[in-house]
Amino acid sequence: MTSNVTQPATRAEIDVCVSEVGPRDGLQSIQRTMPTEAKIRWIEALAAAGLREIEVGSFVSAKRLPQMADAADVVRAACRIPGLEVLALAPNARYAALAMAAGVHRVTMPVSASRSHSQRNVNMTPEEAVEQVRQACAHRDQSGSARRQAVEVGISTAFGCTIEGPVPEDWVMELAVRLAEAGADSIGLSDGSGYANPAQVRRMFTRLRREIGDLAGAAHLHNTRGQGLANVVAALDAGVTTFDASQAGLGGCPYAPGATGNIVTEDLVFLLESMGLRTGVDIGRLLEARKVLADALPGEPLYGYVAEAGLPKGFRPASEQRDAG
Amino acid sequence: MTSNVTQPATRAEIDVCVSEVGPRDGLQSIQRTMPTEAKIRWIEALAAAGLREIEVGSFVSAKRLPQMADAADVVRAACRIPGLEVLALAPNARYAALAMAAGVHRVTMPVSASRSHSQRNVNMTPEEAVEQVRQACAHRDQSGSARRQAVEVGISTAFGCTIEGPVPEDWVMELAVRLAEAGADSIGLSDGSGYANPAQVRRMFTRLRREIGDLAGAAHLHNTRGQGLANVVAALDAGVTTFDASQAGLGGCPYAPGATGNIVTEDLVFLLESMGLRTGVDIGRLLEARKVLADALPGEPLYGYVAEAGLPKGFRPASEQRDAG
Repeated sequence: MTSNVTQPATRAEIDVCVSEVGPRDGLQSIQRTMPTEAKIRWIEALAAAGLREIEVGSFVSAKRLPQMADAADVVRAACRIPGLEVLALAPNARYAALAMAAGVHRVTMPVSASRSHSQRNVNMTPEEAVEQVRQACAHRDQSGSARRQAVEVGISTAFGCTIEGPVPEDWVMELAVRLAEAGADSIGLSDGSGYANPAQVRRMFTRLRREIGDLAGAAHLHNTRGQGLANVVAALDAGVTTFDASQAGLGGCPYAPGATGNIVTEDLVFLLESMGLRTGVDIGRLLEARKVLADALPGEPLYGYVAEAGLPKGFRPASEQRDAG
Repeated sequence: MTSNVTQPATRAEIDVCVSEVGPRDGLQSIQRTMPTEAKIRWIEALAAAGLREIEVGSFVSAKRLPQMADAADVVRAACRIPGLEVLALAPNARYAALAMAAGVHRVTMPVSASRSHSQRNVNMTPEEAVEQVRQACAHRDQSGSARRQAVEVGISTAFGCTIEGPVPEDWVMELAVRLAEAGADSIGLSDGSGYANPAQVRRMFTRLRREIGDLAGAAHLHNTRGQGLANVVAALDAGVTTFDASQAGLGGCPYAPGATGNIVTEDLVFLLESMGLRTGVDIGRLLEARKVLADALPGEPLYGYVAEAGLPKGFRPASEQRDAG
């Protein structure tokens, strides 16, 4: 376990990758701005717990999201953490180029399947957003960076949209194919509105893999209607091996206490490890990282069941279950 | 849908049965005692939403659980609701006989797999608890009741115990076989401590069905560590078709807001219906029944994600998904 803590596990040493998005999705959803130094301290604590992928910020208009104005500084600091994959979000090719210039290992670009949501979120049609991905991929291919930088896409509103309601699955799959043709390294499906159900998740991720093979990417699931981890179980069945989550469900409560947004990293890691799936994350150290977050944002509501209830008596992480046979 | 509301759907008309345990498990977990009249009003509201099974009380020592002292009166009132299956809990054969005398359709008897928990909970060994089930079944067989009354068992601490930690799966299965031999009509598995994980739930319910066939019964799952609905997805895969749940997760919060006990009926019904599984429950009327509960227990914390977030735009219950093809 010691090596996991000082150096995140390699992909081959884990069964499921938990991709922490709190420093991006969590921090951009709250009003307050966490100081750069505190962000770096929190990211270091998350990495020390064994998380090997962290989305550390958004490259966006500082006027629109002042909480993310220091993204380049945070990326540079995060890239100094041994073994950590540093991700950042960028809504278009121009910002993707800035993220790459700052040194990110992977840029995440959101492409919304819902036309109304796409307009409202990034002021583009879905087709224009695909074109931005194509340009970002061209930039990636021309870059002289020693290490290849990846362009990943999350298709948002893939399971439904708060403006339009249901979104046709055929269109989501067509978008995935177009994004693959545009050069994206990985294409996942996002449920930022908390509309997905396990039957749909299983069906769509199975279909995604059929359509684009190994380019099928992460599941970004929310817990808005309490179904987040249920959807994880269905996605696992469909072969998904990377899940986004946010420590303490930070920033995800549009309604009331308990109605969180992102699935909670601690609860996800507990679920996976208890199922015998190795995440490389030390859940005790992950729970300790909440304190770093709480110190940096005093009074901010933090969520999570495992943090409240504690681990079951006799709990064994996946690696110990294996050792015991 | 109208017929579901005035008369619960028959078992053939639904895919999954949601068995409401709030009036028993919820009300016996809180300090206050709900007046008999209010209990009946709440049970009527739950039945009007389409729930076809409700566990309405416990036949136990009134000194130990004064909240349940009116169980016989509540059973008699509930039995007047058309089409409703009325269940009550009884810890031993003597109380099971009282429940049958009051007219319940089914008696639920808890048998704990953990020796320590069994002693602490019912002051018996697991073997003595099996013997109580045998005697209750003998009483059932000798009863002159016009309608056959069933004896159901939930094996508690089946997935782990707060005192002992892990509980051997072989022993849980052996208990299930002994209970089948003792004459129980149905034997389910309970996770009152919130220890279960989806891999274990899938494995154990699959094995339960292999061991005792159609006597394999309900899943009683808690959400203590946020994994309640994830375990439901796994149990569905293993062929489970009856799930216990409690409206508003009543009474289930031993730790802090959010760390509920029983899975929340509203969230479970939403999950199942969104997956295309018919429950016979009208989710709108189910959400309305929360008001009856809130009026009867002002100030009592009520939980649930769907109640906070509302239904997704364009949500269609399972029956309408089928109509649309």
